[in-house]
Amino acid sequence: MKIGGVHYRTIWCNDDGSAGIIDQTQLPHAFKSLKLTNLAGAAHAIKSMQVRGAPLIGVTAAYGVCLALRADASDAGLESACATLAATRPTAVNLNWALREMQKTLRRIAPSERVTAAYAKAAELADQDAETCRLIGDHGQKVIADIAARKDGAVNVLTHCNAGWLAAVDWGTALSPIYHAYDAGLPVHVWVDETRPRNQGAALTAFELGAHGVPHTVVADNAGGHLMQHGEVDLCIVGCDRLTATGDAANKIGTYLKALAAKDNGVPFYVALPQSTIDWTLNDGVREIPIEERDEREVTHMSGRAAGGEIVTVQVTAPGSKAANPAFDVTPARLITGLMTERGITPASREGLARLYPDLIQEAAA
Amino acid sequence: MKIGGVHYRTIWCNDDGSAGIIDQTQLPHAFKSLKLTNLAGAAHAIKSMQVRGAPLIGVTAAYGVCLALRADASDAGLESACATLAATRPTAVNLNWALREMQKTLRRIAPSERVTAAYAKAAELADQDAETCRLIGDHGQKVIADIAARKDGAVNVLTHCNAGWLAAVDWGTALSPIYHAYDAGLPVHVWVDETRPRNQGAALTAFELGAHGVPHTVVADNAGGHLMQHGEVDLCIVGCDRLTATGDAANKIGTYLKALAAKDNGVPFYVALPQSTIDWTLNDGVREIPIEERDEREVTHMSGRAAGGEIVTVQVTAPGSKAANPAFDVTPARLITGLMTERGITPASREGLARLYPDLIQEAAA
Repeated sequence: MKIGGVHYRTIWCNDDGSAGIIDQTQLPHAFKSLKLTNLAGAAHAIKSMQVRGAPLIGVTAAYGVCLALRADASDAGLESACATLAATRPTAVNLNWALREMQKTLRRIAPSERVTAAYAKAAELADQDAETCRLIGDHGQKVIADIAARKDGAVNVLTHCNAGWLAAVDWGTALSPIYHAYDAGLPVHVWVDETRPRNQGAALTAFELGAHGVPHTVVADNAGGHLMQHGEVDLCIVGCDRLTATGDAANKIGTYLKALAAKDNGVPFYVALPQSTIDWTLNDGVREIPIEERDEREVTHMSGRAAGGEIVTVQVTAPGSKAANPAFDVTPARLITGLMTERGITPASREGLARLYPDLIQEAAA
Repeated sequence: MKIGGVHYRTIWCNDDGSAGIIDQTQLPHAFKSLKLTNLAGAAHAIKSMQVRGAPLIGVTAAYGVCLALRADASDAGLESACATLAATRPTAVNLNWALREMQKTLRRIAPSERVTAAYAKAAELADQDAETCRLIGDHGQKVIADIAARKDGAVNVLTHCNAGWLAAVDWGTALSPIYHAYDAGLPVHVWVDETRPRNQGAALTAFELGAHGVPHTVVADNAGGHLMQHGEVDLCIVGCDRLTATGDAANKIGTYLKALAAKDNGVPFYVALPQSTIDWTLNDGVREIPIEERDEREVTHMSGRAAGGEIVTVQVTAPGSKAANPAFDVTPARLITGLMTERGITPASREGLARLYPDLIQEAAA
């Protein structure tokens, strides 16, 4: 998407073979790009969260393999690079998937040809992700267009957390339908949930929508129910970290509360996701999806830009009070109007998923 | 309630006639008391939010009248003091009520006797508020005791915002049942909603519970639904800013979302309030209660204690993104299990209120 009128992806290949990234640790207060020139730089970028978001982490690891092979394209070099990169964020499913894809392609190629092949494969993974997200938006945009057709004024979309292009390679998931609608000239306005405790909404979603030019307003996570009670939300679209085979969606903590408010007020509630997010082995999201408990410091402390411009971390809770920090919650399928996927829009149910993904269901059952 | 084992009220009269207060602008990072010695000091305390919370503002104004009369006990002095104090927070209903009570008592008393009478009346208003809150807790405690009787381990109560003794003279409203239960030796643990954007939960509720010794854990406002889905909340108790004659409750923004989650998970949801909060003229809370839209800076900026100990304000949103800041929302009566009042516990309905307040309903209809 665009920043100051210029099209960016979150990762790109420079002419000199280095990988360009946006340093996301500086956002939203500064926009800086970085050059990754070797394995160590790529590993550091993932570990230090200069890049974040499952798809982007995967593609960064793929470019990390390219950079490593430039120094050592031997079998040992390939395996060692993959091991180093896999260790950067041990729980990231997408990271391991991308590294396996690179290994599958490169192991059967002679060391002398590996560098070229690696760059080609990394570019393919990046393009694949961008295309998946583009398709999600292309399908999802129709829901926004339908509302725009029967409404005067802007379509108000509420979103939670950051499921935008900054977490992917381009377009994003939940924000892709919004970018498509905006680019198509539809009047759209986004309510951006702050998304405590890590503030990905106030920081990243607000930044990327603003940079592309999409009208938006940040609200405290507490505000969404009130806005829905007063007809100020036409539609909710959120991302997803893991979807069960029955359509229950794990997403950033607080998503469930918005889904309840949407149901109570007759507001359509959509979850946008690529097929890679579906876990075909799970049937009951609330019971079966383990929820990560993160550091309490994310609740007790907050970082931001002080008046002088420097980034300062402050404690916002009473000294001595402890905090709990569950990172995700599960929205039961009964609260979800539909799933926006790269293959189209479908109900959040076993049947809805079966209609779109008969091949994957067969594969999972095998 | 207690701070470091010593019993405090939020306002008290010193032997020299000055009024003692806790400087709440310093909380939770520093506990400092202040002496108000004249009208200007009392007016400043209210205006600058050194004291906050409707009942406490009212009692502070009453002591402000006492302090003013020490300098000028004439009719003109009384009226001018009341006018000055009334102008400090123009929309505070309780402030005007307290000033009217003072005027009613003092106008019919000779100037020479006014100072003594004023102190007596101010003390009466303070005692009245403390007693009302004590009664709310005495009744509400039974709900906690009932759960404790059928449960192993602590009773987990979730609360939102600060409806504690810091907002009143003593005990508070929503926290009064909790203090009563704790003081009676019942095992109780409180989930404290951070309460963005002003963080009254993380700052004030956490501070006062910690100071009194009540076990508690701060959570992001987003976390409550997840906790309820997993059986981690036995009961919600919140305060109230305005209750309709039909039992709809306006309270701090985000309360409605917790009430929805409580309903969805079979968790009892109580609203604690004194009778002065009931607006007998209103029947539909969502339609009829006007919601204050506050400064967007409360969303975009946050204050806290930096590593060096100084209080710093930082911007937490993307630069250039605007914010909206509705301060309250309305929880429909259908989501409320019961009202905890100074006269007992009753359903949130016209009939429930009629049973407790036949006299007030008659008065309101007259």
